Amino acid sequence: MNLEELRKEIDNADKAIIKAFSERMETSAKIAKYKAENSLPVFDPKREREKLNAVADASPDDIKDYTRLLYSMMFELGRTYQNKIIGTDTALCKKIENAIEKTPRLFPETAVVACQGIEGANSQIACDKLFTGANIMFFKSFEAVFTAVEKGLCKYGVIPVENSTAGSVNSVYDLMMSHNFYITKSIRLKIDHNLLVKPGTKLSDIKEIYSHEQAISQCSEYLHKLPGVKVIACENTAVAAKSVADSGRLDIAAIASMECTGYYGLECAAKYIQNSDNNYTRFVCISKELEIYPGADRTSLMMTLPHEQGSLYKVLSRFYSLGINLNKLESRPIPGHDFQFMFYFDLDTPVYSPRFLQLMGELPQNCESFNYLGSYNEVI
Amino acid sequence: MNLEELRKEIDNADKAIIKAFSERMETSAKIAKYKAENSLPVFDPKREREKLNAVADASPDDIKDYTRLLYSMMFELGRTYQNKIIGTDTALCKKIENAIEKTPRLFPETAVVACQGIEGANSQIACDKLFTGANIMFFKSFEAVFTAVEKGLCKYGVIPVENSTAGSVNSVYDLMMSHNFYITKSIRLKIDHNLLVKPGTKLSDIKEIYSHEQAISQCSEYLHKLPGVKVIACENTAVAAKSVADSGRLDIAAIASMECTGYYGLECAAKYIQNSDNNYTRFVCISKELEIYPGADRTSLMMTLPHEQGSLYKVLSRFYSLGINLNKLESRPIPGHDFQFMFYFDLDTPVYSPRFLQLMGELPQNCESFNYLGSYNEVI
Repeated sequence: MNLEELRKEIDNADKAIIKAFSERMETSAKIAKYKAENSLPVFDPKREREKLNAVADASPDDIKDYTRLLYSMMFELGRTYQNKIIGTDTALCKKIENAIEKTPRLFPETAVVACQGIEGANSQIACDKLFTGANIMFFKSFEAVFTAVEKGLCKYGVIPVENSTAGSVNSVYDLMMSHNFYITKSIRLKIDHNLLVKPGTKLSDIKEIYSHEQAISQCSEYLHKLPGVKVIACENTAVAAKSVADSGRLDIAAIASMECTGYYGLECAAKYIQNSDNNYTRFVCISKELEIYPGADRTSLMMTLPHEQGSLYKVLSRFYSLGINLNKLESRPIPGHDFQFMFYFDLDTPVYSPRFLQLMGELPQNCESFNYLGSYNEVI
Repeated sequence: MNLEELRKEIDNADKAIIKAFSERMETSAKIAKYKAENSLPVFDPKREREKLNAVADASPDDIKDYTRLLYSMMFELGRTYQNKIIGTDTALCKKIENAIEKTPRLFPETAVVACQGIEGANSQIACDKLFTGANIMFFKSFEAVFTAVEKGLCKYGVIPVENSTAGSVNSVYDLMMSHNFYITKSIRLKIDHNLLVKPGTKLSDIKEIYSHEQAISQCSEYLHKLPGVKVIACENTAVAAKSVADSGRLDIAAIASMECTGYYGLECAAKYIQNSDNNYTRFVCISKELEIYPGADRTSLMMTLPHEQGSLYKVLSRFYSLGINLNKLESRPIPGHDFQFMFYFDLDTPVYSPRFLQLMGELPQNCESFNYLGSYNEVI
């Protein structure tokens, strides 16, 4: 047979497959309705396992494994279709729909906002771009910011989550696992690092440089060229600038934002010392209550998946089967649990899409733990 | 109809699907042979796109999207089956088979090995567990270790890649993207952190604590209870211990391994100060040449995927369709490329499995960049 004839054979097989598949989907819709009327769960793992074995047994030896895989996908599609037919009106879906309706159309111009650090910190710069007149309360640690929002002391909090060169802020992702909050907004801030000193300090006099560990790692190329200079990590770039100002010493420097020269009476000894010129940090604005502002097109989720073959694949097949793309995927080992992972996803989908709500209805069923972190848009 | 009758309908549809699917797979095997004989490529993206549109058009409106997804999976399965029939004897497969054959059966007892840090560093402790008598050369940075191996100055290098509490060593993953090397062995080392001081120093005297930033983050709970103490980051825990020993000061301490007390004449002021009792670090042994020792059951890959819907899903569907599980998945943003990700995978599969070789033959076709980092086993 030539290629044309073989392809004809494929086309004939496809006709039969599409016909039978359509019938199968229609019948599975009827089953879904029957189950809904009789309050039976859509997902019947025992029946699926039996069916998988049966279809493999009914296949030629050589393609048993492939039939099994085809049917795993078919079950996923069947479930998605069934959920679409009978609806997935879960508590989470209701909560999201309610938040879309109740949240004011405008993001507030002013509020009490928790930031880590002190005046001049990048969190503050981000906060000033989000709100026109924020009443900022400063806290020493990221954990304290999460706690202030969780306990209602501050309405919002601003937290850095990732940097274009140093990657995710690991400690923040760990804190996300142990605090209750929602993300209401996201902002990307271009970050420049500068070497700041007390007026009168010469570059060659510098013996110690203070900064936050992320800033240190983002300026590693510059710092490697300064042998013998001690690099000291502190909580925050602005804290570093303040320490230099307060010390009275003329042999130390801080890596911090240019804004800090004004706040602390420092001078810039070297400008833009970061490795990459395309250095931005993404901050999120968190709140205790779920608020979804108009235009929200990004959703953050955290979930733990069972350690079994294909568990991540099955979650991604849900995204794929609903045509939803990812903006970010982060995996973190769960401390004390070898080879168990927590996954963090950012979904790229308008919150108004019925497919999005369907996903929110379905997804929690497939995870060991599931955490909806909010829907929001990103400003630049 | 009741549930039993509906399920009968499903069973009938399944009979038709399995029959047509088996015929389709058999025909696609014939097409693969025809293509191989006529030197045509297996993957024909234009034909797949046309076919996807055709099968969607032939389906009832309500299930068009599902047919499309079913066929995406069917194409993946067809390709895997075709590759199995005609073989995927690529240069990479040959290289792997060759390394399996040529590598000695025993891991060497001694060699010149590059480690970061100085005597007493955790890399050295890992190295001493891998080799009975390694000739260790110490380098200041991880980058220098990669370079020493790449340039042939050292036969092997030992590099930490992840920690159970602090996660992956980000800077190492970035270096992996820009160096040529293979992983030949992996080792997990339980890490205890201790506060080391010069004999005569009291806990209450301590004003400054030196250590590596990962160790600092792993002892954060202990350090938070010491207000007013300055925490200073340096390259390595052993460097920290040595600085304390060399300083002559009785008001500073280092966080380092117990081994460092012996190397540098220090005392332990506080034992096991790490946050988690289950604190291990995984090190890999790297080499310039590909060596695959008997029993290798873990394979590391790095790849860049196109930023299009479902690209990660398609790679995972390959793993899944071959029954290969993941031990680790790490995603890293590519500096300067918004929303483009480099993925790092550890596959859990014996290197002798034909499925593994098939995957190595197929996978590079689906990625923008693909990097095979070696196959090895892990010792504990």
